[in-house]
Amino acid sequence: MIVIGEKINSTIKSVKEAIETSNFKYIQELSVNQCEAGADYIDVNAGMFYEDEASKLEWLVKTVQDATDTPMALDSPNAKALEKALKVYRNGKPIINSITAEKERFNSILPLILEYNTSVIALCMDDNGMPETVDERLSISAKLIDALTGKGIMLEDIYIDPMVRPIGTGSQYGIIALETIRKLRKDYPEVHITCGLSNISYGLPARKVINQAFLISAMNSGLDCAILDPLDKKLMTFLYATEALLGKDEYCMNFLTKYREGVLDT
Amino acid sequence: MIVIGEKINSTIKSVKEAIETSNFKYIQELSVNQCEAGADYIDVNAGMFYEDEASKLEWLVKTVQDATDTPMALDSPNAKALEKALKVYRNGKPIINSITAEKERFNSILPLILEYNTSVIALCMDDNGMPETVDERLSISAKLIDALTGKGIMLEDIYIDPMVRPIGTGSQYGIIALETIRKLRKDYPEVHITCGLSNISYGLPARKVINQAFLISAMNSGLDCAILDPLDKKLMTFLYATEALLGKDEYCMNFLTKYREGVLDT
Repeated sequence: MIVIGEKINSTIKSVKEAIETSNFKYIQELSVNQCEAGADYIDVNAGMFYEDEASKLEWLVKTVQDATDTPMALDSPNAKALEKALKVYRNGKPIINSITAEKERFNSILPLILEYNTSVIALCMDDNGMPETVDERLSISAKLIDALTGKGIMLEDIYIDPMVRPIGTGSQYGIIALETIRKLRKDYPEVHITCGLSNISYGLPARKVINQAFLISAMNSGLDCAILDPLDKKLMTFLYATEALLGKDEYCMNFLTKYREGVLDT
Repeated sequence: MIVIGEKINSTIKSVKEAIETSNFKYIQELSVNQCEAGADYIDVNAGMFYEDEASKLEWLVKTVQDATDTPMALDSPNAKALEKALKVYRNGKPIINSITAEKERFNSILPLILEYNTSVIALCMDDNGMPETVDERLSISAKLIDALTGKGIMLEDIYIDPMVRPIGTGSQYGIIALETIRKLRKDYPEVHITCGLSNISYGLPARKVINQAFLISAMNSGLDCAILDPLDKKLMTFLYATEALLGKDEYCMNFLTKYREGVLDT
């Protein structure tokens, strides 16, 4: 599993404050802690700074890369902010988070993917809004994959996000997400499939349990990347356990190592 | 999900002692507690009493049905013990746990299923021993289902158990079990699929976490019955959460009700 650490997000109050006060120490600690907990990418988001997103995102990129070599997911729909951040970015190949099949957004972000040679998260969403069915999601995915690969972007640089909707607002949204992931995995063995977990449980109680069960379920369907909190030990423990169950951890060596290191929450 | 409560098992020390001392109160409490916690069946096992299994199993059946109307799973490979128990049994249709495709065992237990009109758990195992691959499991399952339905037993009275082997002894055993369940569910939509969960984690640390992740995974593959400890609140919480994720809990009503009743371990 590819883990994108979600903590450096301006919607989190303490992070917003740290950005406002240029508290680089706080951001750097949060970066290093996420890396040590298993993050393969650090997501950086300054979206709460409507006026000033570009320079705040640039500051986040500089701050994070002064503390760690881990690549980042640059989390913005705003091409100007992304470009300002990409100009100073110097860690390994970043992921742009995200593009959609909405014409304007697609056209504004595509040139950045090409110019800066990035990977990209592509959300199953187009100018008709959020899709309802599995078929709609698959058809938007195909459109996105065709458009991106048509420009020379490799399949392994594309991360499809099926756009998970809360089961509290529709009993079928869980199975729709899982079925979309399963069919995408079958049709595109080389593409990455990712999602933000927590949307699934929005509006319900006991959200952590639902998120954990959904991570395990989605991995069973073929999810190979997730945007999550790597500092949530229980969630990471389930991630490692599920890799072992799915035959992706030979001799359960990784699970056993993590156990011995005291990293698991059992 | 159909839950078979596993606690009244003579391999558990306190239960063995209760059977030895005819402590009916202990057994009855354990029955009622499991029912209240969501068990659809109460498994009863007296297998540790090699000499005296038949009369001990008979005593368990009488004791349990004096306390609850919940049907039982009669857990023995021993036709004589099963028959003695069935003769006094008076709750709803019981499950015989279990038959295999081993000739002798099959032939000795089949007449009891027919005479007493029971359901039956059929283990994927034959005279060649424990199967290794998915295909071997599917072929033994087909043999069992054909033999049982050929005698007039309905598909919905058959519970196939794919014989889970520990991932600690073979990294592929998790995915083999899950793939077997998925293919069985596709080939036989009406048959029940069950398993004992805990075998998957045998020999590993942090067994509870692995068992929880396996329950969720197996439900995603099509498992609709499990032999488990319904008094394990966390496990039951994951079971309800996964039903909601899989669209089997309209409006998440059951999950929300359990939450409000304070039954969930969040």
